[in-house]
Amino acid sequence: MIDTIYRLVQEDLAEVEKRLESVADVGFPFQAELLTYCLQGGGKRIRPILTLLAGKFYDYDPTSILPMAAAVELMHTATLVHDDAIDHSPVRRGRPTVNTLWGEETTILLGDYLFAKAGEFATDTGNLYVVRLFTQTLQIISSGEINQSYNAFNLAQTRQQYIQRIAGKTASLFTLATESGAILSHAPQRSVEVLREYGYNLGIAFQIVDDILDYISTEEEMGKPIGSDLAQGTLTLPAMLVLERYPEDNPVKRLFENRDERDNIRQAIELVCNSPIVTECYRVASEYVSRACKNLEFLPGEAGRQRLVEIADYMVERKK
Amino acid sequence: MIDTIYRLVQEDLAEVEKRLESVADVGFPFQAELLTYCLQGGGKRIRPILTLLAGKFYDYDPTSILPMAAAVELMHTATLVHDDAIDHSPVRRGRPTVNTLWGEETTILLGDYLFAKAGEFATDTGNLYVVRLFTQTLQIISSGEINQSYNAFNLAQTRQQYIQRIAGKTASLFTLATESGAILSHAPQRSVEVLREYGYNLGIAFQIVDDILDYISTEEEMGKPIGSDLAQGTLTLPAMLVLERYPEDNPVKRLFENRDERDNIRQAIELVCNSPIVTECYRVASEYVSRACKNLEFLPGEAGRQRLVEIADYMVERKK
Repeated sequence: MIDTIYRLVQEDLAEVEKRLESVADVGFPFQAELLTYCLQGGGKRIRPILTLLAGKFYDYDPTSILPMAAAVELMHTATLVHDDAIDHSPVRRGRPTVNTLWGEETTILLGDYLFAKAGEFATDTGNLYVVRLFTQTLQIISSGEINQSYNAFNLAQTRQQYIQRIAGKTASLFTLATESGAILSHAPQRSVEVLREYGYNLGIAFQIVDDILDYISTEEEMGKPIGSDLAQGTLTLPAMLVLERYPEDNPVKRLFENRDERDNIRQAIELVCNSPIVTECYRVASEYVSRACKNLEFLPGEAGRQRLVEIADYMVERKK
Repeated sequence: MIDTIYRLVQEDLAEVEKRLESVADVGFPFQAELLTYCLQGGGKRIRPILTLLAGKFYDYDPTSILPMAAAVELMHTATLVHDDAIDHSPVRRGRPTVNTLWGEETTILLGDYLFAKAGEFATDTGNLYVVRLFTQTLQIISSGEINQSYNAFNLAQTRQQYIQRIAGKTASLFTLATESGAILSHAPQRSVEVLREYGYNLGIAFQIVDDILDYISTEEEMGKPIGSDLAQGTLTLPAMLVLERYPEDNPVKRLFENRDERDNIRQAIELVCNSPIVTECYRVASEYVSRACKNLEFLPGEAGRQRLVEIADYMVERKK
């Protein structure tokens, strides 16, 4: 299903890719090498696809939609680059991280460069309001991550706090992706709100599935180690359900209280995989997918709406 | 002299300070604490003062100049925060760095937040062209720093490369400060260029003096350790002159070749302080100050021009 969508947007997505590739056209060879490396990392391009699709309900204007799609993808890339410096992750998408290859100093500066370039792409839309949303989104993302880092190894977190946290760190960029597409195609206010809500709920579902995959997937599939959330002390939905179901004693509690890694991470993963917790997490993710699709009937055109439903379904079906 | 200028802009600068203080008004207490800490660090506010002064030659419009002045200062703060994570500096402006107090993870994310907020201030000007300059400036700054990090402990650098490097990491933000002030006050093209050139040359002079002070000042005066450029393998003008004057053997060469720190740093500092090198460096800085002031006669109003000359003179007189 996702393949159909890639085919549908392939021409515009190719234009977005051209813009992303152009980022590496800098005079200084070392920096060009770094940029090429980050940009070739692959990735599913879900965020720019959302901008392209959200922009197709009214006056589709490639001169503003294409740079915005590039802006959201590049902002995403920049956050990943900084995440790697923060987490000291050795691999991402199956390759060594910039941090591993060139060190932290370069990684921080490269992320800053990418944020700035993403911001420049946003100004290419010619729409100051959208640029403002862009800067606000980056504030929300970094606040969400500061919040996450502050709560590392904290067991006393509610589900509501979890949703708030992933709303900041993930759903905010999905929201920007769809809302900007709507605004730049001059959608009426009601439709902007529908597409905004769609992006938000989709983002929450996406992150919940990401958090599930960190337990049930494999390193080969994900291109990075499994169990990394637990290793970093990040309490996600599966771990919260472990705490709820086995309140007396469980490997998540032991890990968070004693910071005793290996055995407890392995046990927590086994516990999640061999219990109804995975199903329960997917149920929560599906609920957000349903919320995402709830008001789509306000948008004109069956085909466009159908594509949004397909992307939403893909959110919970994806294996990586 | 600089006090006269502070008095002249004090009302507007107070407005800029209010905007900067408002940055700490966030819902999440931990983040508010971090932001308050960064923003209270003091600093000379030279960049926002330049924006205010550059904006006074034509239609001074506080509704756009004030947010822009806040934007340049906040971008500066954000780069300092990231610099501290990069250099692992223990102190800055006489206080422990964010990095020392809260760790690298928080420091990286906090810097990202500040860049984004600075970007939002830039959008408050309502001028998309200026926002674009803002994003391009951040690209130039981070490229300059990547370049500097790439050339750490590299002895084969020319003076031209040094100027290019400090143009990127420092003069670019001074350029943005004055150019944006000019644009936002609807200065004619010729005057925009004059103010742009002024900012650029002033920025070069400012950084050369910064690089001198890293040899001749004291830790108490600077609020951070002396000799930090050498410790990080950054070849600045004083070190370049040591290499030129004593090509056979000298402490800078020994330090860069053998990474043998303490004795060589101390000896290099002594060599610079007890030789005509300091005077020669000040001569180069003064040359850039002269270049900065060269075309000011194209700007209207003696008083405004005089203030720019005073700030320029302060660049080489300052002791911290």
